[in-house]
Amino acid sequence: MEKQKTQAFEWFCALRNKITESFLSIEVQSFTQPKIEKRKWNRPGGGSGESTIIFGNIFEKVGINVSRVYGKLEDSAINEISGASESNGEFWASGISLVSHMQSPLIPAAHMNTRLIYTSKQWFGGGMDFTPIYKDEGDCKYIHESIKATCDEFNIEYYPKFKKQCDDYFFLQHRKEPRGIGGIFYDNLTSGNWKNDFEFTKAVGEAFLEIYLHIIHKHMQKSWTKEQREEQLIKRGRYVEFNLLYDRGTRFGLMTNGNPDAIMMSMPPLVKWV
Amino acid sequence: MEKQKTQAFEWFCALRNKITESFLSIEVQSFTQPKIEKRKWNRPGGGSGESTIIFGNIFEKVGINVSRVYGKLEDSAINEISGASESNGEFWASGISLVSHMQSPLIPAAHMNTRLIYTSKQWFGGGMDFTPIYKDEGDCKYIHESIKATCDEFNIEYYPKFKKQCDDYFFLQHRKEPRGIGGIFYDNLTSGNWKNDFEFTKAVGEAFLEIYLHIIHKHMQKSWTKEQREEQLIKRGRYVEFNLLYDRGTRFGLMTNGNPDAIMMSMPPLVKWV
Repeated sequence: MEKQKTQAFEWFCALRNKITESFLSIEVQSFTQPKIEKRKWNRPGGGSGESTIIFGNIFEKVGINVSRVYGKLEDSAINEISGASESNGEFWASGISLVSHMQSPLIPAAHMNTRLIYTSKQWFGGGMDFTPIYKDEGDCKYIHESIKATCDEFNIEYYPKFKKQCDDYFFLQHRKEPRGIGGIFYDNLTSGNWKNDFEFTKAVGEAFLEIYLHIIHKHMQKSWTKEQREEQLIKRGRYVEFNLLYDRGTRFGLMTNGNPDAIMMSMPPLVKWV
Repeated sequence: MEKQKTQAFEWFCALRNKITESFLSIEVQSFTQPKIEKRKWNRPGGGSGESTIIFGNIFEKVGINVSRVYGKLEDSAINEISGASESNGEFWASGISLVSHMQSPLIPAAHMNTRLIYTSKQWFGGGMDFTPIYKDEGDCKYIHESIKATCDEFNIEYYPKFKKQCDDYFFLQHRKEPRGIGGIFYDNLTSGNWKNDFEFTKAVGEAFLEIYLHIIHKHMQKSWTKEQREEQLIKRGRYVEFNLLYDRGTRFGLMTNGNPDAIMMSMPPLVKWV
């Protein structure tokens, strides 16, 4: 089990590094000088995390958080986490989460996260979803087909199930509108074959990077109008509304004394409400 | 009772008109041309509201909402509202709410609302609070003393009680910081003398306008720096966090199929998270 934990944590760090390097190389190719910040935080009860934040000219703000936390869960959290009451609140969790807000209103915002959790049970979870301001049918098709191909290599039941979970989850009930065009979302994944579940989780992270790079390269040379930028800032308000009203990770983190700056790292850099 | 309802609704409209005219006259004195929008909305179960939104050069965005809604409460709401289960969910409510976000980072954002509600019970509620970006001791003293003087004319127990309720309510638990410098917040006010409670509610609205105009005039000629503007946009993020994470009105409205644009009218026009 300790070996599994180490393997998973090292993967999340490696994926973070790979994504960061890929994004920075796009900035550099565009002759721009992005600002990179590292923010470390400690969990009072045990463990820590590190946020990497890129502020660039293509990537307006990308937050990537890698955490490894453990110890005893707060009382208020024990009933929220599967298997935690049987472990007397003892848990171990590690994961990566990424949210990317782009300068160009023609490139979707993106979200990806994957994680491994141990209580008295053990499981993987995660997913990815994309939020374009202007829906491009070609992008949609490419994104969903690529995710499906990744899933199908592991289990042909994964894609339809995880796609539906994503659509159900990333929905703004108060506006009766989806956050974006969806993707996949999975949780409590424990097939009985740890290695296979881990490989799937790795494949999700790899697929995310490949898909997003493709979409970015497709649109990054295009110019945009002031009106399109305005639409983007308004659309970002929906992202904020989702995160604060519905997102379980955000609300759970905030209610259990998580580090607010690390949790808010996913917030858009600039937002408008009209 | 019908006469009371009419009187209260007419007052909320009159206060809205008075505030709107005062704010617009400040814009006009500054030789600026604000944009004013009226947005009407209907409550599917009964009643309606009207939002007045000012986008100006002094007042970056002011939203003032006056509503009069009635009928049967949604099931999910009945247990949230005092006396509603005894009235089989029948209710009547009218109120005014105002949130003001200023161009100048030297002028506080402000919030005021008052309301009258009937279920099987009847009560007034409301209050005001101010959120400066840079705390000015003179302003603080003036604001709290003016509010206290207004309260003391009615009942000397009001101010300490309502001030504490305001401080307790407008607190960002996840950041362990108050939203601003406070003010007063009262609810379930039903002293047995309807007329007196109504007069107090009117006095709160009048005092708000007087206080805010004083503060605005004190600071509106001062210039500010880019860094101060940046601080303001970040501080506004805390306002958004409060509204979506904690504000009972916002969360209650959204969860009971309220009009999202009317509810989100209080959101700041431009916000930054870094």
